[in-house]
Amino acid sequence: MKKIVVIGGGTGVFTVLTGLKKHSFYLSAIVTMADDGGSSGVLREEFGILPPGDLRRALVALSSESHILSNLFNYRFENGVGLKGHNFGNLFLTALERITGDFSQAIEEAAKILGIKGKVIPVTLDYTRLFARLENDFLVVGESNIDVPKHDGSLFIREVFLNPKPKPNKEALEAIKEADLIIIGPGDLYTSIIPNFLVKRIKEAIQKSKAKKVYICNIMTKYGETNSFTAEDFFATLERYLGKDVIDYFLVNIEKPKSLYLNQYKKEKAELVKYDRKVLSSWKKPKVIFTRLLRKGSLLRHDPEKISKVICQLID
Amino acid sequence: MKKIVVIGGGTGVFTVLTGLKKHSFYLSAIVTMADDGGSSGVLREEFGILPPGDLRRALVALSSESHILSNLFNYRFENGVGLKGHNFGNLFLTALERITGDFSQAIEEAAKILGIKGKVIPVTLDYTRLFARLENDFLVVGESNIDVPKHDGSLFIREVFLNPKPKPNKEALEAIKEADLIIIGPGDLYTSIIPNFLVKRIKEAIQKSKAKKVYICNIMTKYGETNSFTAEDFFATLERYLGKDVIDYFLVNIEKPKSLYLNQYKKEKAELVKYDRKVLSSWKKPKVIFTRLLRKGSLLRHDPEKISKVICQLID
Repeated sequence: MKKIVVIGGGTGVFTVLTGLKKHSFYLSAIVTMADDGGSSGVLREEFGILPPGDLRRALVALSSESHILSNLFNYRFENGVGLKGHNFGNLFLTALERITGDFSQAIEEAAKILGIKGKVIPVTLDYTRLFARLENDFLVVGESNIDVPKHDGSLFIREVFLNPKPKPNKEALEAIKEADLIIIGPGDLYTSIIPNFLVKRIKEAIQKSKAKKVYICNIMTKYGETNSFTAEDFFATLERYLGKDVIDYFLVNIEKPKSLYLNQYKKEKAELVKYDRKVLSSWKKPKVIFTRLLRKGSLLRHDPEKISKVICQLID
Repeated sequence: MKKIVVIGGGTGVFTVLTGLKKHSFYLSAIVTMADDGGSSGVLREEFGILPPGDLRRALVALSSESHILSNLFNYRFENGVGLKGHNFGNLFLTALERITGDFSQAIEEAAKILGIKGKVIPVTLDYTRLFARLENDFLVVGESNIDVPKHDGSLFIREVFLNPKPKPNKEALEAIKEADLIIIGPGDLYTSIIPNFLVKRIKEAIQKSKAKKVYICNIMTKYGETNSFTAEDFFATLERYLGKDVIDYFLVNIEKPKSLYLNQYKKEKAELVKYDRKVLSSWKKPKVIFTRLLRKGSLLRHDPEKISKVICQLID
């Protein structure tokens, strides 16, 4: 069975896994542990555990959709002075960590209970925090403050780093080493994708792995992170953190959404990612794959099936 | 397969079920829905659901002990501004209720997930509240205020009632009708046992049922509820709410705990329940069974195995 490793965080990983799980691959998801906002942030602060949100999404993606526990995992409490905003799946992982005394084991037990195939792996088991240095040298502290900028979001990010610099989870290194194909993204570049490469030895492990490496470019730019980024900008930024000549295939969406849908994104200051087909076509490595990746509907996101179709062709 | 119905609430139901589940009976637990304290009270208030605590205990009792989900169900959050004191199992039932939109279905799904045999049945699905009128005519509002008296706990309770008076859960009526044996108690008389009989038609259903009916007397008195109660007092009070000549067997503990253990209960103003063997022996109905029911250790509670042994003899 071919082994595919998906690296990222947030809904991007969810989308890719959702499409691929219908095929007979052995899937592993390596997810960022830098999240410090929302329910995850509160639990991280109050229980000293790793942020469960990204793990939860990956676990749900790999579970059977008909399973009531999957629905439970996604349920967010809407009432209750103390409970409002908490995600049931996050509480589940927190309680499991308390009982087992070990976060890895908590994930394993949750995976068993959800009956998932494949593996969900935190990129690190160490506590860490994401920092961003802006073009004006201002330092933004914490993933959630970068993700939803409290500062002037029109400023570019000069660099991101993790502090303290965490050790890698051995399981992540193993999965990368044994992979036949590694998929990076889609997802928020500075807050979901790059934090994985900032963990010690992860970048090197990816570079050394014999797996084919695929980077899936985002469909939309994100205010405060990738304002006005073209596909070329996305790729160049990724390379800065992952190294040159690592990625074999670069998936770029060429499907145009209705302008009605695009207009809705204006209030979020997000735009369709542009690309220069001439420039990209001239690249030897990575090979750029121009393809229609849009999901139906007003949410401008990747379609799990469309991604999965391209990946199946690449792995054969 | 013989059908046994256990009626009560709190740890009493847990104890009886724990012992009986090792035998091949079909077990149903009918539990009170008057709880309004602790985690259950908060969830009841904030989510408008039925109090999950007593249901949770019964569900855990019927699940396999090795199951990690059973441990999870019993886990109580010890940290977290909003989570502290909440029981994971209670949150589980609350989230399930939100997803299924139906409390009965939530219990059924939880039972499935925990892989339990038998049934856990709320005595009513209606919202209600327990009131106690004291000997000085003072009205105490709410189960938790009776259970841990905020008033002068040396006063006797003249009567308890539910308001609004709830309709019975049909499943409870059915289980009672089809039972071969009904066990009432042990448990807090006014806050865990009697509230079940205050639900419309429950008392009548028990009276009509052809099942053998067993009442298990408490080991210790409880401050604010059954101060200085003898076994005869327990029985007389039960009869006031359940009717005359209903109970076939009355189990009375004759095992004496170490005085060291008894001393620990002095600060709770709880005493060993006394009984007049001569008087009780003269009773024709119920037949009083004098037997050793104490669990090992300093907690003066019933032993699940000892109860189970007596019940097995009665049902044959």
